[in-house]
Amino acid sequence: VIDEIGAGYSTVAGAAVVLVAAPVRKMREIFSGIAPYLEADALIIDAGSTKSDVVAAARESLGVATARFVPCHPIAGRERSGVTAADRELFVARQVVITPIAENSAEIVNRATLMWNACGAFTCEMSPGAHDAVFAAVSHLPHLLAFALVDELASRPNAKTLFSHAASGFRDFTRIAGSSPEMWRDIALNNREALIAEMDRYLAHASTLRDAVAQGDAVALETIMFRAREAREKWMAGELDHFNDEAA
Amino acid sequence: VIDEIGAGYSTVAGAAVVLVAAPVRKMREIFSGIAPYLEADALIIDAGSTKSDVVAAARESLGVATARFVPCHPIAGRERSGVTAADRELFVARQVVITPIAENSAEIVNRATLMWNACGAFTCEMSPGAHDAVFAAVSHLPHLLAFALVDELASRPNAKTLFSHAASGFRDFTRIAGSSPEMWRDIALNNREALIAEMDRYLAHASTLRDAVAQGDAVALETIMFRAREAREKWMAGELDHFNDEAA
Repeated sequence: VIDEIGAGYSTVAGAAVVLVAAPVRKMREIFSGIAPYLEADALIIDAGSTKSDVVAAARESLGVATARFVPCHPIAGRERSGVTAADRELFVARQVVITPIAENSAEIVNRATLMWNACGAFTCEMSPGAHDAVFAAVSHLPHLLAFALVDELASRPNAKTLFSHAASGFRDFTRIAGSSPEMWRDIALNNREALIAEMDRYLAHASTLRDAVAQGDAVALETIMFRAREAREKWMAGELDHFNDEAA
Repeated sequence: VIDEIGAGYSTVAGAAVVLVAAPVRKMREIFSGIAPYLEADALIIDAGSTKSDVVAAARESLGVATARFVPCHPIAGRERSGVTAADRELFVARQVVITPIAENSAEIVNRATLMWNACGAFTCEMSPGAHDAVFAAVSHLPHLLAFALVDELASRPNAKTLFSHAASGFRDFTRIAGSSPEMWRDIALNNREALIAEMDRYLAHASTLRDAVAQGDAVALETIMFRAREAREKWMAGELDHFNDEAA
């Protein structure tokens, strides 16, 4: 909240924990700015939606404090931002993905974990690269698909007719297209490689489905639809043993 | 409900209104079966999700009663089916699209309209072809896109990891992939031409977005995202004058 309250980077002097919650593209500048003022044993964490790029920024700009930087991604958020949107319940029962780096000691990772637990969140660990690949698939990709659909339909000459008949299925499918354009532009660019791989896989699979429609292939269509419905039902029921469990 | 209650087609004798609520691919057979028993002034309506194909089936199989067949698509439904799932409130405040055909008189279309109004629904009219094009865009396309995403991710070797990190955005985006595979297979095949046109447009636009990511084109990304968010906000607020209003 350094920007908003008009304080300088030196505000972090004396802090035992520093949480850098800022747009990812600003991380490098903030890390450089706070580095001279960090306490020698301060824990530094972030809340960015992408991790490989934040790790690179930390390694470039945090100096010796890099060993005490534990990259984090809390899966929680609100549509409002800034100090006045603070909510002490925000992390209760939510997941925080911690992506330790080689420089981290077990002790510092544990400190970050306990900090999140104290806020009511549960944590899991994976590498920064694995994090970016997983969230490219289950989050970044669907966001781009939803933005693309709304924009494509809105550009039509008969858009008014189309939108006047859109119903609850369309509303839910496109809810994430109501998200912050600035934030999602940056996520897309910062996780570019993983996201492109996901979009290519998805576009290929959607093309397969398109061809099944064109060929009148009822078996192919129902196979895909039955598999998808079952997978979603198992996921919603928390029956994750339904799914393949090999490394990516 | 002829099938379910074990009655024959002759059950329609004496009925002033006959609603054929059956999978679209069964319509032709049902129309043939009931045609000999229909009263000379009976109103016949259906509840199919596609209209051009149902109109073709009616013209082939209903004979003189075709003039009294008013194709309808009530935009309401439940995940349960059959007689025991009946709900007298199902159509209250919901939209019913009526797609009159050349054979219909103004009187018979009015009778269908009043019937739906009596169930609490409001109606609008368009041609069967316009109906199929509009719903291909705002309903059939998103359903196929959702089925494709869930199936693609579920097929991965690391699907368990992916689904264990999917959150509320994914849940809403894929809600329609929980829909009936049999029903959506048939809708896709029965509205094949319009749906393929929609999928091709969508895949082209999604590819544009993919290329913007690959090229690091922040301006293209934010332009699409801002336009999409604004369109969705206007739609949700009922501000349809935001949209283009030319004929398709």
